Amino acid sequence: MTNIAAKNQYGTVAIVGVGLIGASLGLALKQAGIVQRVLGVGRSQANLDQALQMGAIDQVVDLIEAAKQSDVIVLCVPVAQMRAAFITIEPYLEPKTMLTDAGSTKGDVILAAKEVLGKKVCQFVPAHPIAGGAQHGASAARADLFQGKQTIICPLQENSAQDIDLIEGFWQAVGAHVKKISAVQHDAIYAAVSHLPHLLAYSLMVSVLNSEDGEQKLQHVGAGFKDFTRIAASSPEMWRDICLGNRTAILQELDQYMAILGHLRQLIADNNASGLEKMFTKASQARNTLGSKE
Amino acid sequence: MTNIAAKNQYGTVAIVGVGLIGASLGLALKQAGIVQRVLGVGRSQANLDQALQMGAIDQVVDLIEAAKQSDVIVLCVPVAQMRAAFITIEPYLEPKTMLTDAGSTKGDVILAAKEVLGKKVCQFVPAHPIAGGAQHGASAARADLFQGKQTIICPLQENSAQDIDLIEGFWQAVGAHVKKISAVQHDAIYAAVSHLPHLLAYSLMVSVLNSEDGEQKLQHVGAGFKDFTRIAASSPEMWRDICLGNRTAILQELDQYMAILGHLRQLIADNNASGLEKMFTKASQARNTLGSKE
Repeated sequence: MTNIAAKNQYGTVAIVGVGLIGASLGLALKQAGIVQRVLGVGRSQANLDQALQMGAIDQVVDLIEAAKQSDVIVLCVPVAQMRAAFITIEPYLEPKTMLTDAGSTKGDVILAAKEVLGKKVCQFVPAHPIAGGAQHGASAARADLFQGKQTIICPLQENSAQDIDLIEGFWQAVGAHVKKISAVQHDAIYAAVSHLPHLLAYSLMVSVLNSEDGEQKLQHVGAGFKDFTRIAASSPEMWRDICLGNRTAILQELDQYMAILGHLRQLIADNNASGLEKMFTKASQARNTLGSKE
Repeated sequence: MTNIAAKNQYGTVAIVGVGLIGASLGLALKQAGIVQRVLGVGRSQANLDQALQMGAIDQVVDLIEAAKQSDVIVLCVPVAQMRAAFITIEPYLEPKTMLTDAGSTKGDVILAAKEVLGKKVCQFVPAHPIAGGAQHGASAARADLFQGKQTIICPLQENSAQDIDLIEGFWQAVGAHVKKISAVQHDAIYAAVSHLPHLLAYSLMVSVLNSEDGEQKLQHVGAGFKDFTRIAASSPEMWRDICLGNRTAILQELDQYMAILGHLRQLIADNNASGLEKMFTKASQARNTLGSKE
């Protein structure tokens, strides 16, 4: 369903965490014309200054003020900080205020929300905009970051249909295609297609750096290596939190991956030409069907 | 040193294997104006027809004819087929004829050359143009494929300085930056920065495909996953041969990588936040210094 948001419909929106996602959201909301004003909350003065200067936010406030004044609060902080944000917000959360988030993991954020918000958890509609990438910080923000990208919404059984529609319309207004799946599905899928590749890319960089002739190796990297490791430039803090937040699903994917890599190692050690070709053919056929970019 | 090749200096050049690399080389040689004619040898009629049609080669011949008629023979076949090519060529190899290649591994190709060519191995100057990528076949060929890219030359102790210069000038004429390193160094470096990433990308595709909900996972892949797995679209046959041809160095890199991945798994299992952040910071700092593209 596509909801058409009305002018200023979402009133005062607080963005908590004005990094790449938060600042881009501020720009996009203003461009869409569906908000009256955007409050910014953050730890980094540099990001807050940048967000103010680019017009992504109108005013800097603390989290308590944001909780009191806002119609919609969007938590764009690293997932490990969500619980602390819920704790600060909860006493000031008015019944009319809606909460959503941009966390890359959903099970852990929802658990924290249920534990901290209690009955008020019905006001929280969890979301995950699939945007961002290797760059981070408000300076990389752009109004079209969510345009044409998926935003996953993982509705809670406590949410009313009306509130889910409201948050769906909110993300659609910034250009996202909204898809609703369960938090468990979300976490399993993104462990496989996002979290695991990041871990593999980080590990490759460390593997090359740790080798005796690491410096020389880095001088010989080509386009393939750069494509492969691009995601290893991502925020270490964010990915630390994702690893811990989605630990169970990630360990499962990692174990499955390591078993396959071990099998591949055996094929090479055994000089098993037909086994190698069979495995590579399966992989390359699947990759070819994916296309090149989004 | 930059050698300036003279017009038609390299006379008749035979390209053995007219896939992406071979057909691009034909186009580039002609554009550089340093050859009189280009002979094409290949197994695939489609590639030969395509190469003729695009003007990458002037005539299709068999390998024996190529050996007899050429001033320079360039082997652009998968590395596992190099030995068979040397065996066919050897009896017809004139003293004036130079051999070079485009193989992604060097130790195994050099071993085959020494065993098959005997004293004539002095006529073989091994090379590895760092070009290509996920696409393959003559249809993907372009004259500027080597432009501004590195070509590694691994001179043999049997090569004369003059012959090394000649082959260096040949690759420079198609736009490559030539770098000379030993075959052992070459194979260790490319095991780390090229061969290993390919294996990791192939394995990720297989891991996702093998999982119960693989289809659904593939529907959620984003730009990061696509960047990461782009190289998994590469030719299965070529990569099978590279795995076997550079087996020792690849197994060493793979073991080192698997140890690091195992360490990362432990950090996650132990909820070791500071250990994770330290590792990711090291990786992302190194990745940031590499830049985005070539």
